[in-house]
Amino acid sequence: METMTVKKSIFVLALLGAVTGTATAQSSVTLYGLVDVSYQNIRSGHNSALGGASLNRLADGSTFGPGSRWGIRAAEDLGSGLKSNVVLESGFFTDVGSSAQGGRLFGRQAFISLASTSLGEIRLGRQYIFHDEVTILNNPYGNATILNTGAPITLPNGLITMFIDAPRIDNAVQYLSPVLGGFRVQAMVAAGEGVADRYHGLKASYVRGPLNIALSYEQSKSRAGRPASPGTSAIAAGDGVNKIVEMGGNYDFGAFKVFGGYQQGKDLTTGTLGVPSTGGVGTQITSLTIAGLTGAATELKAYTAGLSVPFGSTVLAANYTRSKFENSAGAGRTLSRIGLGAHYNLSKLTSLYAAIGVHQGDLREFVNEKTVFQLGMRKAF
Amino acid sequence: METMTVKKSIFVLALLGAVTGTATAQSSVTLYGLVDVSYQNIRSGHNSALGGASLNRLADGSTFGPGSRWGIRAAEDLGSGLKSNVVLESGFFTDVGSSAQGGRLFGRQAFISLASTSLGEIRLGRQYIFHDEVTILNNPYGNATILNTGAPITLPNGLITMFIDAPRIDNAVQYLSPVLGGFRVQAMVAAGEGVADRYHGLKASYVRGPLNIALSYEQSKSRAGRPASPGTSAIAAGDGVNKIVEMGGNYDFGAFKVFGGYQQGKDLTTGTLGVPSTGGVGTQITSLTIAGLTGAATELKAYTAGLSVPFGSTVLAANYTRSKFENSAGAGRTLSRIGLGAHYNLSKLTSLYAAIGVHQGDLREFVNEKTVFQLGMRKAF
Amino acid sequence: METMTVKKSIFVLALLGAVTGTATAQSSVTLYGLVDVSYQNIRSGHNSALGGASLNRLADGSTFGPGSRWGIRAAEDLGSGLKSNVVLESGFFTDVGSSAQGGRLFGRQAFISLASTSLGEIRLGRQYIFHDEVTILNNPYGNATILNTGAPITLPNGLITMFIDAPRIDNAVQYLSPVLGGFRVQAMVAAGEGVADRYHGLKASYVRGPLNIALSYEQSKSRAGRPASPGTSAIAAGDGVNKIVEMGGNYDFGAFKVFGGYQQGKDLTTGTLGVPSTGGVGTQITSLTIAGLTGAATELKAYTAGLSVPFGSTVLAANYTRSKFENSAGAGRTLSRIGLGAHYNLSKLTSLYAAIGVHQGDLREFVNEKTVFQLGMRKAF
Repeated sequence: METMTVKKSIFVLALLGAVTGTATAQSSVTLYGLVDVSYQNIRSGHNSALGGASLNRLADGSTFGPGSRWGIRAAEDLGSGLKSNVVLESGFFTDVGSSAQGGRLFGRQAFISLASTSLGEIRLGRQYIFHDEVTILNNPYGNATILNTGAPITLPNGLITMFIDAPRIDNAVQYLSPVLGGFRVQAMVAAGEGVADRYHGLKASYVRGPLNIALSYEQSKSRAGRPASPGTSAIAAGDGVNKIVEMGGNYDFGAFKVFGGYQQGKDLTTGTLGVPSTGGVGTQITSLTIAGLTGAATELKAYTAGLSVPFGSTVLAANYTRSKFENSAGAGRTLSRIGLGAHYNLSKLTSLYAAIGVHQGDLREFVNEKTVFQLGMRKAF
Repeated sequence: METMTVKKSIFVLALLGAVTGTATAQSSVTLYGLVDVSYQNIRSGHNSALGGASLNRLADGSTFGPGSRWGIRAAEDLGSGLKSNVVLESGFFTDVGSSAQGGRLFGRQAFISLASTSLGEIRLGRQYIFHDEVTILNNPYGNATILNTGAPITLPNGLITMFIDAPRIDNAVQYLSPVLGGFRVQAMVAAGEGVADRYHGLKASYVRGPLNIALSYEQSKSRAGRPASPGTSAIAAGDGVNKIVEMGGNYDFGAFKVFGGYQQGKDLTTGTLGVPSTGGVGTQITSLTIAGLTGAATELKAYTAGLSVPFGSTVLAANYTRSKFENSAGAGRTLSRIGLGAHYNLSKLTSLYAAIGVHQGDLREFVNEKTVFQLGMRKAF
Repeated sequence: METMTVKKSIFVLALLGAVTGTATAQSSVTLYGLVDVSYQNIRSGHNSALGGASLNRLADGSTFGPGSRWGIRAAEDLGSGLKSNVVLESGFFTDVGSSAQGGRLFGRQAFISLASTSLGEIRLGRQYIFHDEVTILNNPYGNATILNTGAPITLPNGLITMFIDAPRIDNAVQYLSPVLGGFRVQAMVAAGEGVADRYHGLKASYVRGPLNIALSYEQSKSRAGRPASPGTSAIAAGDGVNKIVEMGGNYDFGAFKVFGGYQQGKDLTTGTLGVPSTGGVGTQITSLTIAGLTGAATELKAYTAGLSVPFGSTVLAANYTRSKFENSAGAGRTLSRIGLGAHYNLSKLTSLYAAIGVHQGDLREFVNEKTVFQLGMRKAF
């Protein structure tokens, strides 16, 4: 790969001080990214869409993990403890080269922010939703393999996740408090603008020494009576408010690290929280008629517990996740998974990994991903 | 936002001299951009599509202003007064992360150029159209808020602008003369290639000290009898030639700056000048049956006058714009707007702004944007 | 173009050593690209879709040549002769600013690789297919003008190329041996994953001093009985295996350089090798009912020979290419082309070129591009 060393490119370097005429102002632009590809072998359940067959494929990390991306970060020190920032993050599938998130250019993140050391930060644009930020804490590889509790699983009539994960939300205004003694509060609103649910979320997090925990509460108010999208007919009426509460965290004992998380969803027939039509998995599981369950699942209770152990450059990990999907009559169906994985870090930017996930519970024979094996490579830049 | 400081990226720096083997050659690549998001409150006219309702939304700057973008500029000094350049500019909506300009990757600009100090410059590709370059001069914030005379306004049956603004054109060949004593001439041709109008444009500009003025004349010849796009049936016949003449400019008195502009459009039922189907607003206003007007509007006369006053880091501004749309029988309908705005510059790259636009005239009750309030943030990099 | 010098951007420079904690690790990210636009005049054959008419257009280089692109290369030295790499390459049409390769973001290339000095390299993702790599060697400007043997030619019922060229393949796993005495072997597999043909390819190349040659063999196994894409009905059954063998190379005598190539395709009614639906030209020429030939063409034999002569900064070149398309009964139709070109290098990164291609043979009156004239400009960065 010596031939890839490019000598013909030059990056212009200029001190912003010379531009703004102030000695304190500093500005930077960074091009960054992460590429993840894995070989995957999937053994399907007998009542799944694949009918018990197995499937071999090369898949982008986004299938169970981090999702390949490239992005631009611009940061500027405005003085007096004030900073302005831009994050533009583009998701894509490395296996085929096309855009993820339903073809959006910056489908992962696109926001502008103004941050004050003392007053906190305001972010405007497309942003990560709170339960996704909490989910990252609850599993050993941080949403990077099948051990991810928010990884999508395929039912014959749609996708499902063990922890609901509609990762991003459009048109959002977020406030992040300053970090005080390791403690931070966040609040976010997205109006819906007539085409999506009205979203309100709160999150509290605490990071200190070996401890990293967070709690979120979110609700998504129905667009009942309004059209699902401009030009379509109105969606069915309903006065429910889709609610999700999640807690998660980890504690690093040095020789090992423990992980745990709990998520509860209510009134899930209402709302689309996030924009599932463009790549995410929404909270509206109405359409997921779950095998053995009369009517739609409207409630979710899920928990996870995990452990990771570092051995030099290798990190071994395991977790167990269990979810129960209930209908309005209180009848429920379960899905659980035990996951095992190993990451070998070739450097801080490059790693190789292997992972296996085995599903159990009432739904195990209904999912394509009854058993998943992954062998992958990842590189950040 | 301390966490956004990226330490893991390295940009390779190489002197091109080492590559070309010549001491004089210098090449650069620059990654640049601008992100603009605003909260907007819109109060609609009683006969508009919104029927008098008001709407709150988070919107990308492109709605009334600069349009979020990222781009790549490559420039190379070839010696002997010769330079080669590439501009690739990608527009997107920060509020949702998707591409603007109908999903084109480099929908804002994509061209290659060869420039000589003494002979001028040739540009090949997708470029800004001349009247858009003139419009930037005629309003206080340079097409950056509702004060923009080319900002789109929504009629029940389509979009309209007070100054016609089809910002870009495909397949264009442009010649720019050298700047002589502040004076420059530009000429541009786009053949249409069987799928768009044949475009010819001329522009003259003069920039010296506090004065910045420009004049453009453009015509767009009908594709009558040819298919609108490959594989579709031919559009209706017509022998007209769509014509737009515009003048605009500003003068900086130091304590304040004045702005003015005039645009006249003729035979507007002919032509599509620019590519309105992909995000722009074309000059073909045939389909805009304007309330109170029998038949299509084919003529436009519009003028604007404005003022800006700097107070330290703040720039206050106001402008007044008035447009008259006439049918072939000479009957006309008017739309006017008074705009007020304030920009607060946190640095040369970051600003906060507020603006209000109030519409008057015959069409005021027919537009969604009867009154517009914006509160936004913008950051360049 | 002095105004394009951007002073406001800063690229953050950081030594990776500080990140990985190792003194040997080095990482780089490079933004690179190439933009090519040409004026083209095409004179069509009397029985072609253009019916003998001529067409003038501004076209991106991709029409007969290199294809405009921008990309990101990340490379990291992991120590012990090990490197990790990422290549993300995005194709677009400079004349209109939209994405090439059917709208894919990184449609040209998207892969991750791990390379060892002693063991070779593994690449995972969307990659160039082997016959495309060989074709680059067989013509004077390396696939950069109408002299390209893989340039598409338009029949009334589809596209055809003189050397089959389906440039890229999805979901591919490639192994590249180390270079030993100038000799390298490559092997690639793409499973198809139920939506494309199963591909297997082998390539050997030898580069030493003035000599640069390569040989490839590829086969693409039918998806017969499987759906063409998820949700569609199964394609017609067939037990054939599409096969392509190609050899090509060049030798630099100093005062001039000679080029040659040969390609043979068999059982071409089977298979789609590559993904022609997204911008490439596939090997499945079933649908190309060739004038004067009963039934589909299933066999191809093509050869090319060329010469280039440098005169200072100018490189003059000529080549002759001849292809024969045969049906299963052994009847054949020919297409040949003589090409002449001149490249003038303004620097190592910028060039101007002119080229002409004149077609002969049984199919000459059936192609739009009977005679092609190009006058273009290209700049790499």
